[in-house]
Amino acid sequence: MFTCDKDRVKDKIETFAQFGATSRGGITRFSLSKEAVQARNEFVKRMKALKIKVFTDDLANMYATVPGSDPALPGIVMASHLDSVRNGGNYDGVLGVIAAMEVAETMVRDKIPHRRPFTAMVWTNEEGSRYPPAMMSSGILCGKFEKETMLLSKSPEGKTFGEALGDSGFVGDQANRLNSRDYTMMLELHIEQGPILEAKKKQIGVVEGVLGMVNYRISTHGQADHAGTTPMSYRKDALLAAADTIKYLHIELDKLDKHLVYTTGELVVHPCVHTVIPDYVEFSLDARHRDPEVMKQVVKVIKGLPKKMDKCTVSYREAWARKTVYFNRKLVTIVEKNAKDLGYSAMKIYSGAGHDAQYVAELIPTTMIFVPSKGGHSHCEEEFTSVDEAWQGINVALNTVLEADAKSPDSAD
Amino acid sequence: MFTCDKDRVKDKIETFAQFGATSRGGITRFSLSKEAVQARNEFVKRMKALKIKVFTDDLANMYATVPGSDPALPGIVMASHLDSVRNGGNYDGVLGVIAAMEVAETMVRDKIPHRRPFTAMVWTNEEGSRYPPAMMSSGILCGKFEKETMLLSKSPEGKTFGEALGDSGFVGDQANRLNSRDYTMMLELHIEQGPILEAKKKQIGVVEGVLGMVNYRISTHGQADHAGTTPMSYRKDALLAAADTIKYLHIELDKLDKHLVYTTGELVVHPCVHTVIPDYVEFSLDARHRDPEVMKQVVKVIKGLPKKMDKCTVSYREAWARKTVYFNRKLVTIVEKNAKDLGYSAMKIYSGAGHDAQYVAELIPTTMIFVPSKGGHSHCEEEFTSVDEAWQGINVALNTVLEADAKSPDSAD
Repeated sequence: MFTCDKDRVKDKIETFAQFGATSRGGITRFSLSKEAVQARNEFVKRMKALKIKVFTDDLANMYATVPGSDPALPGIVMASHLDSVRNGGNYDGVLGVIAAMEVAETMVRDKIPHRRPFTAMVWTNEEGSRYPPAMMSSGILCGKFEKETMLLSKSPEGKTFGEALGDSGFVGDQANRLNSRDYTMMLELHIEQGPILEAKKKQIGVVEGVLGMVNYRISTHGQADHAGTTPMSYRKDALLAAADTIKYLHIELDKLDKHLVYTTGELVVHPCVHTVIPDYVEFSLDARHRDPEVMKQVVKVIKGLPKKMDKCTVSYREAWARKTVYFNRKLVTIVEKNAKDLGYSAMKIYSGAGHDAQYVAELIPTTMIFVPSKGGHSHCEEEFTSVDEAWQGINVALNTVLEADAKSPDSAD
Repeated sequence: MFTCDKDRVKDKIETFAQFGATSRGGITRFSLSKEAVQARNEFVKRMKALKIKVFTDDLANMYATVPGSDPALPGIVMASHLDSVRNGGNYDGVLGVIAAMEVAETMVRDKIPHRRPFTAMVWTNEEGSRYPPAMMSSGILCGKFEKETMLLSKSPEGKTFGEALGDSGFVGDQANRLNSRDYTMMLELHIEQGPILEAKKKQIGVVEGVLGMVNYRISTHGQADHAGTTPMSYRKDALLAAADTIKYLHIELDKLDKHLVYTTGELVVHPCVHTVIPDYVEFSLDARHRDPEVMKQVVKVIKGLPKKMDKCTVSYREAWARKTVYFNRKLVTIVEKNAKDLGYSAMKIYSGAGHDAQYVAELIPTTMIFVPSKGGHSHCEEEFTSVDEAWQGINVALNTVLEADAKSPDSAD
């Protein structure tokens, strides 16, 4: 088995943590921001120091390719992102880039023979924090979004993604995009962003896919009246109706499969004045499960919501939905085998969060490796994965890449 | 019995409805705005046409005084306000000013003999819509607020109340303020802002006082985690806890007196992102009842809230409270008697909403007259009181003023 260098992993984590560092140990590193450009320059500097050429495509996605012994073979790519949410942490995304860099560095420094080119890749704007939607570049490459529409996506200050791209200095040729002719597979290492690996005391998450989800907007309509002058029996309180609707959903959805997760994260009250009975409340319902049958039951619960709650009208609409994405079975098996061979405890897991890998899975064989997240926290400054845990994950990645290099993931095993 | 002129009442309602008219039949007439100045000028024009002198005090409160036959006697004042909330209606406040103007006009045109001076008064900034708090001027006159602090109250655009006052052109002498030496009583006619008179088919509300209230801020603290990656059993969902806390309050408060009204009008979720489990929710609880014993029970329910709800911490703090204000009993009796003598159906009622009259009640004998609000709606464009209902209320006001003029409300009857 091959292993990478733990001190180098530590150094990379600490170095990237400087770009956009917040005062409380996290980072704010929006895509294409000054801080993100600093991180990109660090990536370029480190790859060039290893004599690895770096190029970009028309969306400023970055590719650092270590040539293989057989120039005719399509390459293997490891990719993740350097951008973060506001007050994010030092692991979400960046650890996957560090893993790709460390795999490339180990292959180069240790002169590990390999047939295929190996590419460490950085996706532009995975979080979509300033320029929505999330996973924008992989979405464009994989036909989910129109590039022309995405270029018009605006930051809160009114700058477009297209303008930010132009200003970044990282725009390259569209012909350089990740594609199914030049690449045979993609691997993404990521923190779990959940508490399961930690709770189950597992070092490696062998990711089988990304959970299917539905996202609904549910609203209650009542009547705005004066808080002091309207007897209780005359009221149509949209917030009371919303509270009862949320409780109803919890009771009904808790009857379904225990692996279902569902969340009301957003709720807005109108007019939101302490002396006025609310006339309108709208809230989100996000539900995720890998089994389409369970998702159908979720939709049935939503469609079965009472039409009236506390004399208010209840309505709903689907905002969006995605089907469960299943990662390439052969690659999943290779990840699992290498974790075992390295002596690490591992478990199969589904990703509840979205990743660029879920789009790429429709383009080329793809899978992911998860490492533990302390307390399950992510998208916050408390995000933490130990150097040991990161190093173990990268070792699994390195050996997976090398085993896939020897095989052809597309053909029969 | 004396009566005023129904056509004149209709004309006044229609005229004032023009100043700040919205496209859907309501008004937006913030205190000291261009629209409010138009309404003030109309008040001045109409009073001057009757040879009634108009003067103002240092807060731009306006006073139009019809002299009485005995210059030594303190005066009677009828007052309300011309300002509105955003997208308010044509009755809240302005109908009380119209009533005061119509009583003055009837006394002048019909040459009704009276001993005391009668003053039609306009309060500045009752709603507090742009310069909080509400009932600002009466609060200053009655020692509830410091004038210097109030002058610094800022509009959302950053203009201070003091600057707006200066710009208005209506600032007069502080010596002109309503006071207990020159005035013997105040009467305010107002729409009910609730559905009780309409439901009970009563023409006149004989207002006995203003309900005591408490206003609490209640919050739930949980843990922000990823909506897709955090199993249900690991969650500390502050919004679920808030929904359960609201339900708990409804169950417990519904056990108390049936005349209690309580409202959660404001609720804010953090971070309010559909993919993040909320870590913090804060909401208001406004509760009103005339009986201090019932209010004590309300506070007991709040203080007895479970400290933990759905694994989240529940906390509360009192934002403010006011005791029930009881209006002058002799004046209440005079209002009731005159409604009866005019042949109108009447009922005793408490105001759930706040009014300038509640502060003035601490300065001089004060009471209010309510007229019906269609559907109980107020602070909205749908606000409606018919000309007949308004006219009836003003007739009660006119006869109440004249009866009080003959008596001395302060002395034994």
